[in-house]
Amino acid sequence: MKIDRMPTLNGVRRAAGKIAAILPETPLLPVQIGTTSCWVKAENLQPIGAFKIRGGWHRLSDLTAQERARGVVAVSSGNHAQGVAWAAQKLGIAATIVMPRDAPAVKLAATRALGASVVLYDRPGENRDAVAADILAATGSVLVHAFADPWVIEGQGSAGVEITAQLGRQPTRIITCCGGGGLAAGLSLACPDAQIVPVEPVGWDMVGRALKHGAIICAGDDAPKTICDALQPPATAPINLAVLQGRSQPGVTVTDEEVREAQRFAFSRLQLVLEPGGAAALAAALAGKAALDGDSVIMLTGGNTDADSYAATITA
Amino acid sequence: MKIDRMPTLNGVRRAAGKIAAILPETPLLPVQIGTTSCWVKAENLQPIGAFKIRGGWHRLSDLTAQERARGVVAVSSGNHAQGVAWAAQKLGIAATIVMPRDAPAVKLAATRALGASVVLYDRPGENRDAVAADILAATGSVLVHAFADPWVIEGQGSAGVEITAQLGRQPTRIITCCGGGGLAAGLSLACPDAQIVPVEPVGWDMVGRALKHGAIICAGDDAPKTICDALQPPATAPINLAVLQGRSQPGVTVTDEEVREAQRFAFSRLQLVLEPGGAAALAAALAGKAALDGDSVIMLTGGNTDADSYAATITA
Repeated sequence: MKIDRMPTLNGVRRAAGKIAAILPETPLLPVQIGTTSCWVKAENLQPIGAFKIRGGWHRLSDLTAQERARGVVAVSSGNHAQGVAWAAQKLGIAATIVMPRDAPAVKLAATRALGASVVLYDRPGENRDAVAADILAATGSVLVHAFADPWVIEGQGSAGVEITAQLGRQPTRIITCCGGGGLAAGLSLACPDAQIVPVEPVGWDMVGRALKHGAIICAGDDAPKTICDALQPPATAPINLAVLQGRSQPGVTVTDEEVREAQRFAFSRLQLVLEPGGAAALAAALAGKAALDGDSVIMLTGGNTDADSYAATITA
Repeated sequence: MKIDRMPTLNGVRRAAGKIAAILPETPLLPVQIGTTSCWVKAENLQPIGAFKIRGGWHRLSDLTAQERARGVVAVSSGNHAQGVAWAAQKLGIAATIVMPRDAPAVKLAATRALGASVVLYDRPGENRDAVAADILAATGSVLVHAFADPWVIEGQGSAGVEITAQLGRQPTRIITCCGGGGLAAGLSLACPDAQIVPVEPVGWDMVGRALKHGAIICAGDDAPKTICDALQPPATAPINLAVLQGRSQPGVTVTDEEVREAQRFAFSRLQLVLEPGGAAALAAALAGKAALDGDSVIMLTGGNTDADSYAATITA
């Protein structure tokens, strides 16, 4: 994957300004984890229920008139899908989203409700990037990659600019869920003094392994199941690894049960609905897998979950 | 019930300053209701999961050293209980809370977890105010009434000061759940140019009836059941009626099913957990029972709900 340009702190700041003009900031709320009082950044309260609206808006609003006319294509299990669809609808751009057939029904419905065309693929078996490549070749549309894109990284990083303003200083540490590494990379640019702790599902630590080995590692066909539908990238990408190397430790992994416990904590203590992937960082914090102090921030990244599975989780 | 002093706009402003010093503001989030984009004030994101922390803090932090030493007593189905217990714990004041035996288990547990002594009573049959009066007579403690108290009214009104700052102007209209009328009265002081629309459960419109008749009306023993455990006051009080008369219309009532629909909307569209009483204003808005424009604000007042009943609601 060719790197067109590297994302920059100035780009993150520009993204933050553009996003502040169209979206209210999400709250930074106090949370008590054991004996430590620290913070959660409630990105699940974005209009699409996830932080992905940031990268989608920064990318699409920077497209030229010619690019806008050709439309955009994205590949996503649901949150990036909604982020791109939301931005496309606001800007009058045609959006086609390649989504796995087993994506949560709420994510499929919400993406369609935002006016995007949805093309389904089968998660194990079909190569989602190949499906997207065929559409791109046929239409000449612009690919909006879910994480391997400098605008998307800068857009996601705008959350770190908000956190710094809300806290009055940079956080010491940001614990964040991690799929392909777009948010983690953006936050590392936005908050250069903060330690970035990426949290991935067990068996899907594609960023952690890449940081450890200094090279892109692909998920094997034997990767375990995870309830974190949003955190199953086939691999991270060179642009994300390049930003994160030297900035982030390999991070930690969390189990499905730790994630469910975090969803229950958010329900009963924070009155926030979190989807599994959106609760991964909180899961790591609650499980004692990440150090915490008063200036630590835990990213709550999404809340798009089907009622049946959520009900089963909170009553378990 | 004797009125010691009337609450004032200056008192609301002073409360807002005190509360801003100890609690982050709750977010004002955009919401799309039908074709209208307006706002929700997410008071369910307060540390105790409800707006009652405001009045509790303003009241208890204004007590003299002598009053603090004697302790405080409150009567509450759970949210005012937690507001008083939270403030008492921060200030080192002993708190005794009289709560109905059928209060949600989460509210009983949370009140005890904040260090308060809980005294139970049976909701139909026992007079909760008499139970409290016996404790007050025996201990000389200070009663912190859930709504008939100038400090409590001013404290709840501080939410209106925040809304005005967040919106950049007073809202045209605030649609708010209403039990005894403490929040509605506080908001009417905080936002003198706004229309205040109190929303009550069907059969429990004690404020609506008082406004209509210009006199306090008591709930009969034949009052219907409601899932809004937080909105079942036996009556409003003279101080609340005095503030609201001429400022608020009689308001509207909502059914249990309208409230459940609002809880589902908050779950799937806003990623917020709302208890039934906390969803009453949203229920009125969704049911088309309250006029809405771009500067209308819907109060989301609490999110303390048992997992089982919440799961049943969102999967219904």
